[in-house]
Amino acid sequence: MERILLGHGSGGRLMYQLIKEHFVPEFHLKTLNDSAVLEGIKQGRIAFTTDSYVVSPIFFPGGNIGELAVYGTVNDLSMVGAKPLYMTTGLILEEGFPLDDLKKILTSMSDAAEKAGIKIVGGDTKVVNKGKADGIFINTSGVGVIGKGIDIAPLKVKPKDKVILSGPIGNHGISVIAERNGLTFNPPVVSDTAPLNALVSDMLKKTKKIHAMRDPTRGGLATSLKEIAVDSGYCIVIEEESIPVPPGVKGACELLGLDPLYVANEGILIAIVKPDIAELLVKTMRKHLLGKETRIIGEVQESPSGMVLLKTAIGGTRIVEMLSGDQLPRIC
Amino acid sequence: MERILLGHGSGGRLMYQLIKEHFVPEFHLKTLNDSAVLEGIKQGRIAFTTDSYVVSPIFFPGGNIGELAVYGTVNDLSMVGAKPLYMTTGLILEEGFPLDDLKKILTSMSDAAEKAGIKIVGGDTKVVNKGKADGIFINTSGVGVIGKGIDIAPLKVKPKDKVILSGPIGNHGISVIAERNGLTFNPPVVSDTAPLNALVSDMLKKTKKIHAMRDPTRGGLATSLKEIAVDSGYCIVIEEESIPVPPGVKGACELLGLDPLYVANEGILIAIVKPDIAELLVKTMRKHLLGKETRIIGEVQESPSGMVLLKTAIGGTRIVEMLSGDQLPRIC
Repeated sequence: MERILLGHGSGGRLMYQLIKEHFVPEFHLKTLNDSAVLEGIKQGRIAFTTDSYVVSPIFFPGGNIGELAVYGTVNDLSMVGAKPLYMTTGLILEEGFPLDDLKKILTSMSDAAEKAGIKIVGGDTKVVNKGKADGIFINTSGVGVIGKGIDIAPLKVKPKDKVILSGPIGNHGISVIAERNGLTFNPPVVSDTAPLNALVSDMLKKTKKIHAMRDPTRGGLATSLKEIAVDSGYCIVIEEESIPVPPGVKGACELLGLDPLYVANEGILIAIVKPDIAELLVKTMRKHLLGKETRIIGEVQESPSGMVLLKTAIGGTRIVEMLSGDQLPRIC
Repeated sequence: MERILLGHGSGGRLMYQLIKEHFVPEFHLKTLNDSAVLEGIKQGRIAFTTDSYVVSPIFFPGGNIGELAVYGTVNDLSMVGAKPLYMTTGLILEEGFPLDDLKKILTSMSDAAEKAGIKIVGGDTKVVNKGKADGIFINTSGVGVIGKGIDIAPLKVKPKDKVILSGPIGNHGISVIAERNGLTFNPPVVSDTAPLNALVSDMLKKTKKIHAMRDPTRGGLATSLKEIAVDSGYCIVIEEESIPVPPGVKGACELLGLDPLYVANEGILIAIVKPDIAELLVKTMRKHLLGKETRIIGEVQESPSGMVLLKTAIGGTRIVEMLSGDQLPRIC
């Protein structure tokens, strides 16, 4: 089996070969300059994002680190209403990493980029000695363009805004944990990793009155809502009964002592929107494959500032805090 | 001593605190959205680059991984003639990494960004278990704008073009190797890590007839020239005597059995330019602090295609290949 050598990261012939033989054809790269030159960005504000992926294991039910890294950046751009256009990929490989796994991951990244309509325009590869990394870490950075009239940021959130959730929670985190620990659940749990840009595009065609958006990844739904509450200065109240938790996720969480509200997702979004367009937006989102289970899960209230409150199924109210500690390390 | 915990990367409260207490003030971040929104990019082509830094050790004479990561991205943007504007920083931390070291590195990144006039607009932090990374890895990605009439790419290189080198070679690589192995040289060797954008700006004010530029980092001067030769389809001939090798670098290379042509640099550039402006450009570059030792080191010839030839001091000719193998792993 061919394996990655330290020399693949030293800037010399081995690296050149690796790039020419695998990266250039896979990503259809045109030049190997120090920077990619992006043509065709004519106007508009530009969105710019970065994320590193250290998920363990690198292959899990429903996906792998490569497509996760592509969709993660596509989704981060989408969450500010940008159309994702270009991305880069920075790899850190551990000496001895199987070349076949690298090829699988690159192909998966290429397929994911095509599916999401984003172009991979550049990259970088470093290799560290055996034992100094864990197989492969991937950084993806992306740029996109924000259309006119779109201004999505927690500061725009107002009391009475509705909180919309596009789908069931917990699938990504549980699928990774299951794979990591050799567990199988019935029904099986598969990562929801997916590009949200087409769904967001449909939403923005219908209305510009979206005040905040987040894809609740690390830290889960609870942490994303808490961040928006803190940044906006208002209170978010959600109804436990309205939050879809798939049976497999529910069972796994009970078994493992996890709270699904804190489990990572990679293919759903929260939108905080003006109340008068909430119902219409839900209808629009339900027409999209990734939004079939969209529903309103709560609303924004004036106070108490910076808090998230969960109305439980039995009529109680629970204060929702950010994820505390390391419930699920290396989930993305 | 405070140390990084797995929870600092889990997306929850610890991470939020780390970002609020250290990243936001250090980098003057305004929002913590999923993407940064870049204002003020009105026109022009956009350059986009990424690089990951895994240098070992992370502190070395003349610099550290933080400023290296900032200047590396500034320089990659500069090499296509772009004015660096915005950058992101993606950190992968090993559980147990000292918080004080992280603070030092963040401060150094902030200082470096200010010095280079680039804004850090976003980032990401992941933490992996102890033993699954080597302290800290940093990815930086950057965007910049390319002014009108600037078109720098190896395909523009023509026979008779002159090859200009902005300074002495080998300082970065030797400084890192020395630190790694506990060696001291006399005279001491200090990394040349520096932002090249101001020097490039001066060059582009003088002429647009720059055909190719590279900062010869990993793989050194030899590998960068070979890449340009291959990509342009011409031959590059350089004069050994015209290439400045500092005495400390020369001594260290002799001791360690290294060829300075292959040792990494982080603060010099090669420019391949139209012959009629070469002398003028050298004069311009010498006025800049980072270009004081600029000189013409060779020229482009029609053939043999894709080759780099070194005319040695004693009158011979040597074929220069890319760096082969792993002479100096983890140099940046």
